[in-house]
Amino acid sequence: MIQTQMNQKELITPNTTAQIYNIIRYNGEINRMAITRISGVSKSTISLQINKLIKLGLIEEKTPPDSSQRKLKLKIRGDLGFVAGVFLGITKLSIVIFNLDMQIKCEELHSFDSISDPVECNRQIIQQLKELCRNNGIERLWGIGIGFPFPVNFREGKPDSPPNVPLWHDYPLRQIYEKEFGCPVLIDNDVNVMALGEGYKGCTTDESDFLFVKVGTGIGAGLMVDGRIYRGAKGCAGDIGHIEVDGSDVRCHCGNKGCLEAIAGGKALAAKAAKIAANNESPYLKELLERNHRLSAVDINNGAIAGDLPCIQLIKDAGSVIGGVLAKLVSFFNPSSIVIGGGLSAFGNLFVGAIREAVIRRSLHLATYELNVCISELKDKSGPTGAGTLIIDHIFSSQEFTSTIKRNLGAG
Amino acid sequence: MIQTQMNQKELITPNTTAQIYNIIRYNGEINRMAITRISGVSKSTISLQINKLIKLGLIEEKTPPDSSQRKLKLKIRGDLGFVAGVFLGITKLSIVIFNLDMQIKCEELHSFDSISDPVECNRQIIQQLKELCRNNGIERLWGIGIGFPFPVNFREGKPDSPPNVPLWHDYPLRQIYEKEFGCPVLIDNDVNVMALGEGYKGCTTDESDFLFVKVGTGIGAGLMVDGRIYRGAKGCAGDIGHIEVDGSDVRCHCGNKGCLEAIAGGKALAAKAAKIAANNESPYLKELLERNHRLSAVDINNGAIAGDLPCIQLIKDAGSVIGGVLAKLVSFFNPSSIVIGGGLSAFGNLFVGAIREAVIRRSLHLATYELNVCISELKDKSGPTGAGTLIIDHIFSSQEFTSTIKRNLGAG
Repeated sequence: MIQTQMNQKELITPNTTAQIYNIIRYNGEINRMAITRISGVSKSTISLQINKLIKLGLIEEKTPPDSSQRKLKLKIRGDLGFVAGVFLGITKLSIVIFNLDMQIKCEELHSFDSISDPVECNRQIIQQLKELCRNNGIERLWGIGIGFPFPVNFREGKPDSPPNVPLWHDYPLRQIYEKEFGCPVLIDNDVNVMALGEGYKGCTTDESDFLFVKVGTGIGAGLMVDGRIYRGAKGCAGDIGHIEVDGSDVRCHCGNKGCLEAIAGGKALAAKAAKIAANNESPYLKELLERNHRLSAVDINNGAIAGDLPCIQLIKDAGSVIGGVLAKLVSFFNPSSIVIGGGLSAFGNLFVGAIREAVIRRSLHLATYELNVCISELKDKSGPTGAGTLIIDHIFSSQEFTSTIKRNLGAG
Repeated sequence: MIQTQMNQKELITPNTTAQIYNIIRYNGEINRMAITRISGVSKSTISLQINKLIKLGLIEEKTPPDSSQRKLKLKIRGDLGFVAGVFLGITKLSIVIFNLDMQIKCEELHSFDSISDPVECNRQIIQQLKELCRNNGIERLWGIGIGFPFPVNFREGKPDSPPNVPLWHDYPLRQIYEKEFGCPVLIDNDVNVMALGEGYKGCTTDESDFLFVKVGTGIGAGLMVDGRIYRGAKGCAGDIGHIEVDGSDVRCHCGNKGCLEAIAGGKALAAKAAKIAANNESPYLKELLERNHRLSAVDINNGAIAGDLPCIQLIKDAGSVIGGVLAKLVSFFNPSSIVIGGGLSAFGNLFVGAIREAVIRRSLHLATYELNVCISELKDKSGPTGAGTLIIDHIFSSQEFTSTIKRNLGAG
C-alpha cells in the first residue's frame, strides 16, 4: 500500500551527522546559529555533531575577515576528496573532477568517432579518467556520476534499450566502473543529469518543481519534483520527443508520424534548411549548401544572426511547435520554470521567445503568470555538473554517509 | 537551494511511535516480527513503542483464532476515535464518518439547490455534519477532510479563484471548520482527494505514481507522485480540462478554443446529443428530447446500452479525444495506471476502451506496455474516502502525532 511505502521510507532514521554536514556543504560558510535555525535541531546536538565533523577532518572553523563579526564560520574541507562528473554525448565526452565543495579541480573534453561499441568506448573513457586523475595528483575518487545520452535503468545502472546503439543494451556500466575505480557509481540519462546540474548551480537553484528541456538532435525533458528527479513508473518520464504534434504527417525514425523531434529537432531543422536552399528561398543557405554540401543547425543560427529571414522563420516555427507541446505539459505539471538547454538553445532569445509565447498563449493563467522560461545558465557545463551532483549527493546521503567516511577516511 | 530544502525536510526527525502506529494501521492485523521486518528498526525499539501504544490505548493485542499460530497479532483500536470525510459537489454533498481504521461508521448524502453562497452552504454542511455525529453518538471528531469542486489553495485552506462561484474566493473554509469543530481540517480539490481515496483502497493501492482522471462536466487530473499528491508550483497541477485539442475550434467557456472539456466533457456531449436529435440522426435521442426537453450524459449512456449507434459513437469519440491528450501526458509522466472516475466513467468499458486505445496508439511502448487504464473501483466513494484519508494521514503524521494524542486522549 502506498502509505506503507511512505512509512517504510520515512523509517530509515536520518543520519544527523550527515544532515549537519550537508547544511554546511550547501550553504558555503555558515555559523552555528544559522545551522540551528535551518535544522531545527538543538544547539547541544549541533555542537556535538560539529565537533565530530571537525575531528573527522570533514569541516573546519574559519575566522571571518571582519573582526567585528565575532562568530566563527564553519566550512567544509573541499580538497579532502574528489568526485568525477562524466558526461557522454554522441560525439563528445566531457569529464570534470570536482572537489567535495563542487569546485572544479580539472576538466577535459574529448571527441569520439563512434560510441557504437561499448567495450572500446568505455576503455577510452576509463583510460582518460585515470590519466586526468594521475596528471592532477588525485589518487582516489570518492564517487563517479555518469550522464548517458540514451535511456537508462537507473536502479541497475545499465542502459535500457538505447535506440541506434543496440550493443549498449544491458551493458553493466555501473558494475564496470565500480570495479575499476573502487568507489560508488551512479548512471542516469543526459537530460535528468542536466536538470540536476541546473538546479544545483544554474538558473533554478531556488526551485523544487521545474522542467529542463533539452533540444538537440532529439528532444527530451527532465522533471524535477520536490528537488528530486522524477523518473516515473518505468523510468521513462520526460520522453517528450515522440509526443504527437497533431495534424502533422512528418514521418519519424521511430515509425510514427508527427513526433515532436521529427518536426523541431536539430536534424529536422537541417533537413528543412536544405529544402529551403534547394528551393532558392534563401540565398544565404543556398551558398552555404553549395560550399559545404550539407547544412546544420549552426548554419541556421548564423543565418538568423546575419538577418536571413527564412532562417529566422525556421527558428521561430520550431520554438512555436515546441512551445505548443510544452503548453499542455505546463497545464498538467505546473512547473515554476522551464529551462531550455541542449545544442539548439544556442538559437537564443529568438527561439526561447517563440517557445515562451506559445506556452503562455495556451496554458492556464494561474500556471503561467509567474512561469519562468529561460535558457540554461550552465550551458555545456550542466551535464558534467549534474553528474557530479548526482554522485556527491548520494555519497553524503543519510544512508551512505557512514560508509563513505569509512571507505575514504578509515573512520566512522 | 534545492538540496538545502531537502535537508531541511529530512531533518524533521521522524516520530518512531507514529511510524510504528502507522505500520499497524496500514497493515491491519500484524505481528511483531512483521513490524520489525517492515520498519528495519530493532526488536527492542519495537517492543518499547508497542508497549507505549498499548498503554495509550491506541492498539491492542489479539489472540489469533488459529491456536497453532502462536504469535499474538496487533491491531489498532479503530473505534477509539472518528474523522469525517466531506465531499462537496456542485449539486451533492457526501459525508462519511470513518473510525481510525477507516471503517465507515455512518454516511449521508444530501442535495444542494445551489452552492453559490458559501455562508448558507457551509451553514448547512456544518449542521448536517453535527447532526450525523449526534445521531451516531460521536461526541468529537479527531479531524475533518474536505474535497471541494474548485481550485483550492491547499496551504491556506481556502478556495482560489473558483470559476462560476466568485463568492467562494478566499473564503476561510479551514478556519471556519477548525473553529466550529475544534479539530484539524484540511481542504483539497475534488480530483486530488479522489486520487487519494483510490490509492488508499481502490484499484491502485500498490502504486506510488499514477494518474486519476475525473471526467464529468469538467475534466481534471490528480497526480500521485511517490505516494503523495503532487500539486505543482502554484497548486494547479492536473488542470487538464483546458489543454488544447489541436485543430478544434469549439469555443470554451474560458474564452479559448478547443479546450478538452469543451469537446469531451459532460456538457459538451449533451449539446452534441441535442444536435444529433435535432438533425434526426438518432430516433432514440429525438424521442427523449421531445419528451424531456433536454438531454444529458445519462441519456447518451442509456442510448448506448440500448444499442443506439450515434450514442455509441459519441462515447467512443469522447474517449478517443481524451485518450489523445492523455497519450501526451503518459509519455511525459510515465504513470503506472490511469484511473478514470467522475460521472462519465459510468460510460464503462466502451469509454475506457476508447481512451486506452488512443493512449496506447500514441505513447512510447516502454510507457504503455504495463500501463493499466481502468475505471475507479470506489466510484462515488472515492471522494469521501479520499477526504478521510487526507485528514487521517495528517493527524497521525510524525509532525502531528503527539498533539493528536494529547488533544484527544489527554496524554503525550
